[in-house]
Amino acid sequence: MTAERSDALRPPGHRAVANRRSETMNNRLINACRCEPTDVTPVWLMRQAGRYLPEYRALRESHPILTLIKTPELATEVTLQPLRRFDLDAAIVFADILPPLEAMGLELEFVKGDGPIFHNPVRSTADVKALRVPSAEESLNFTLETIRLVTAELDGRLPLIGFAGAPFTLACYAVEGGSSRHSQRVKSLAHSEPQLWHALMEKLTDTVVDYLDAQAVAGVQVLQLFDSWAGVLSPDDFREFVLPHSQRLIGEVKRLHPDIPLIHFATGNSAWLALFREAGGDVIGVDWRIDFADARAQLGDHTPVQGNLDPLMLFAPEPALQDAAARILKQNAGRPGHIFNLGHGVLPETPIEQVAALVDAVHNYHG
Amino acid sequence: MTAERSDALRPPGHRAVANRRSETMNNRLINACRCEPTDVTPVWLMRQAGRYLPEYRALRESHPILTLIKTPELATEVTLQPLRRFDLDAAIVFADILPPLEAMGLELEFVKGDGPIFHNPVRSTADVKALRVPSAEESLNFTLETIRLVTAELDGRLPLIGFAGAPFTLACYAVEGGSSRHSQRVKSLAHSEPQLWHALMEKLTDTVVDYLDAQAVAGVQVLQLFDSWAGVLSPDDFREFVLPHSQRLIGEVKRLHPDIPLIHFATGNSAWLALFREAGGDVIGVDWRIDFADARAQLGDHTPVQGNLDPLMLFAPEPALQDAAARILKQNAGRPGHIFNLGHGVLPETPIEQVAALVDAVHNYHG
Repeated sequence: MTAERSDALRPPGHRAVANRRSETMNNRLINACRCEPTDVTPVWLMRQAGRYLPEYRALRESHPILTLIKTPELATEVTLQPLRRFDLDAAIVFADILPPLEAMGLELEFVKGDGPIFHNPVRSTADVKALRVPSAEESLNFTLETIRLVTAELDGRLPLIGFAGAPFTLACYAVEGGSSRHSQRVKSLAHSEPQLWHALMEKLTDTVVDYLDAQAVAGVQVLQLFDSWAGVLSPDDFREFVLPHSQRLIGEVKRLHPDIPLIHFATGNSAWLALFREAGGDVIGVDWRIDFADARAQLGDHTPVQGNLDPLMLFAPEPALQDAAARILKQNAGRPGHIFNLGHGVLPETPIEQVAALVDAVHNYHG
Repeated sequence: MTAERSDALRPPGHRAVANRRSETMNNRLINACRCEPTDVTPVWLMRQAGRYLPEYRALRESHPILTLIKTPELATEVTLQPLRRFDLDAAIVFADILPPLEAMGLELEFVKGDGPIFHNPVRSTADVKALRVPSAEESLNFTLETIRLVTAELDGRLPLIGFAGAPFTLACYAVEGGSSRHSQRVKSLAHSEPQLWHALMEKLTDTVVDYLDAQAVAGVQVLQLFDSWAGVLSPDDFREFVLPHSQRLIGEVKRLHPDIPLIHFATGNSAWLALFREAGGDVIGVDWRIDFADARAQLGDHTPVQGNLDPLMLFAPEPALQDAAARILKQNAGRPGHIFNLGHGVLPETPIEQVAALVDAVHNYHG
């Protein structure tokens, strides 16, 4: 390890994670995932590690994002950064949903301003046939190694979340070749060539099952499946083109690891949460475009729910932010099975002090 | 009128609108807006006039989009183009939601690839103070004149829809200065400077009331209010920052024109349709991210509903397209008050023959 990396791992002025908590395991997240009572509502934030933190931006100055993800010591450092600042109830491994597609044979590049680009998108039968179903141990070992390093660092005091993109969301990137406003190619492919579509989804599903299995074996305590793009679909299309695959995926992961809670998350699907839930998951993550009480009503009191503050509320003045958090907690009305989170990831320009204020507001709430 | 424009109004090979229908007024849309029975379900399509039509693209080769909108003879031609091809139950005036902002003092430019840009976005108290509340008769007369020309051309055989952007959607463009992925500035402004926000919304509301009033006076039979960006909001934010303004707007327009049905449309809000309905509107337009039956259930059987096919279904093979249309009609279960439409606008690459197939499928449906 270079001196530079060593410095990065212990930025001056930050307490070491090892010293910041009592030696007791923080079980809030796990208990909430099991719909069991907790002392206060657990809170973590999607993209809690990332560009809004100056210590992350400092690392990015000398390393491209894929280098951060693929260098376990650096990914470990990035994973731990937000834990030094905020009293979060979970760590989430610093990784990305796209490297599994790279491992399948797609050429990934992060282009400044345009986001991720795949230079050989999947459009034909030959393209689908050419996709490998990689072994995560072989092709994605950098993230597994990060999990092992972070787990050692956390030493049982805080749960670590592993994650993967869901097959549909991966298919969006694979077929469109990057982000896409209308998902035109992916929807056209599903409807025009359903056999080819399902063959693609099968391979993606197999890849993600193996990847989540490997993360569980490497030591994560919770898994999250991100179907970030599912909300571009009508309920009918989700039912026909996505549901069977996500169902198989979650079923297989849960058979392998029945004790590891799985959070199933999407955005834009808040009018068909009950259908989304049919795909599985111990916890359903919901976006901010629904009253939290309505989300719980759609899902039923016995389904744990993660969410659902608009990430943009972190740009509001502190009293408005606190009010918004309190409104969600009030809507939950003390029912067990609530994990507080944003309805989407933390944005790069988010003020750090607002993140701290939010975490404290959740922990200090008494209904 | 130049010879070129005259040619444009009567492209060779197209039947004149005057000859394409019987002399009876097509009352389907109006009746459905009043929740009265119709012989078949009325259908029109958001962006039914536009870039997917070769005759539109031909006009665009020689005229920038703002010229088409601001030249009544050209806008009339574009309005009529889809009616020569498809058996649609309404015309919608060819216009855009942004010229009212231009009339308020913002400098609008359509930049190829980037969409609309405002060079002097609204960010400060001084910016809001500087905004004019324009008279539509003076500043937006080109669209009013288009309405008069189209009305004469249609001669009472087909209803004409006028429209405007809702205050929130206009505020998004005014504050962000163009399209925006996360609506970061607009949400920050609303929360950080609520007084300034409401002052801006007041001016936008006054502008739109006058504009819709003028369109009604000019001759449209139906109005649609597009709150295309409302779905970026949490229900709480909509309630606080948008609802009172849209409510006042719709209330004032309905007081001036009680007999003109008003369709209130947004996307991304399908989990809070009942709240959206509180803002008003005789008909609620819904996007494709909800089962049509659930939309009707949320809104109640006596609220007419417009929607809600995914525009991407027009890229699917014809049988799949027909099935999808039939599923929506079946979910409606013959209740009066259904206007068939897409859940969003027709996309530029849409195959024309699929639009024809959709319109026929709706008209030929027998439950």
